[in-house]
Amino acid sequence: MLVDARNPLNIGAAARAMSNFGFRRLRVVNHYRLAFREARSAVGAPELLREAEECRDVPEAITDCSFVVGTTAAEARRIEHPLHRLEAGAEMIRTCTASGSHCALLFGSEKRGLSNSDISFCHCLMRIPTREEHSSMNLGQAVAVCLYELIRGDAPAAIEDTAPHATGEELARMEQELLKCLLLSGYTKPGAEAATEERVRKLLRRMQLSSEDARTWTGMLAKMQLRQRKDSRT
Amino acid sequence: MLVDARNPLNIGAAARAMSNFGFRRLRVVNHYRLAFREARSAVGAPELLREAEECRDVPEAITDCSFVVGTTAAEARRIEHPLHRLEAGAEMIRTCTASGSHCALLFGSEKRGLSNSDISFCHCLMRIPTREEHSSMNLGQAVAVCLYELIRGDAPAAIEDTAPHATGEELARMEQELLKCLLLSGYTKPGAEAATEERVRKLLRRMQLSSEDARTWTGMLAKMQLRQRKDSRT
Repeated sequence: MLVDARNPLNIGAAARAMSNFGFRRLRVVNHYRLAFREARSAVGAPELLREAEECRDVPEAITDCSFVVGTTAAEARRIEHPLHRLEAGAEMIRTCTASGSHCALLFGSEKRGLSNSDISFCHCLMRIPTREEHSSMNLGQAVAVCLYELIRGDAPAAIEDTAPHATGEELARMEQELLKCLLLSGYTKPGAEAATEERVRKLLRRMQLSSEDARTWTGMLAKMQLRQRKDSRT
Repeated sequence: MLVDARNPLNIGAAARAMSNFGFRRLRVVNHYRLAFREARSAVGAPELLREAEECRDVPEAITDCSFVVGTTAAEARRIEHPLHRLEAGAEMIRTCTASGSHCALLFGSEKRGLSNSDISFCHCLMRIPTREEHSSMNLGQAVAVCLYELIRGDAPAAIEDTAPHATGEELARMEQELLKCLLLSGYTKPGAEAATEERVRKLLRRMQLSSEDARTWTGMLAKMQLRQRKDSRT
């Protein structure tokens, strides 16, 4: 998934690497529509680029994804998000894919990488082990290296006995219920709604919930909320 | 070592990947001198590109190298040369470098790859495990992937997630708050208190919360509960 890539050559290069390594579904979230259109119409663009989906924003792009991994050049771990080296992150993605879930790999813009808001939809971050003194990679090259690591070694990843991960949609539903509860209870400070929303979103992603557990939570929170509403009315 | 790369952007990209992964000595054998000159004078060209050596031909470029590996997109093994997958080839290069010898990695031109003559100077060939149907990679991306494989796993996997896990005590506190909320809201059916308690305990353990996240949840739940109580009293 490419977010706000600005250079058509980079979009094309990312698509080419996908084709080289046998990946097929490219989604592009782009405020620079022209870049995408130009890349798509380039001579020799791989089939998958012509079939790439344009999404309005990151939430739309990840709706059916159970595991969303953001890429970053940063050395420092963001407090809110686990940061893995590519080798370890790829292992997690393989495990998740093996259980039949959809995974998304997010790449940010050439200049700024992923925004804080983009990152808030990720379950974890991953970085390519570049030198500290020159950590920022070219977008097309970063995509190629990540995808190579995903198919590297060929050896079928051990299929662990794991419950299917919650999808973006299931998490969004739980998030809504929790936010309503927090608002009703006065936990959310007036004026801090957006900040709370982002904090909650990150919190839920760190939990790596299964579909079933997400639904259980949603049910519990809905019930609490209902009670709070009823009480307020009497 | 780049042989006859034609596109200055690709030469620049190769140099950038070298800088990213900590390689320093680039040698360029080029009949298209202009491409190299242009790449070298580009804004933001890494130091190592300005220091790259221009060589007349492959023999000159590999004089001091003990192990020369050519890269190829070809699936078929050339009769005269052993062909290794990248993973295995990189292992051989690492072994050789560890013994203090110089190794060279040769990349051919964008269009035709290495010539038969170039290959005749190689000890073996190496290929990136791309799909058979689309095996030819962009030069800059191929360089990035090969160099990544060479440094892969090198440095200690130091940046793994290190947020301390919630202790039993912290989880017990969160559990208590959640159970109170569930009871007040009527989620817990009368008579099913023990069963709910067990379900909730398992649910919280599956989440693998950090200390900090457990405390956040405890705070949110306490606030919701307080609200419910207050409402019930009025």
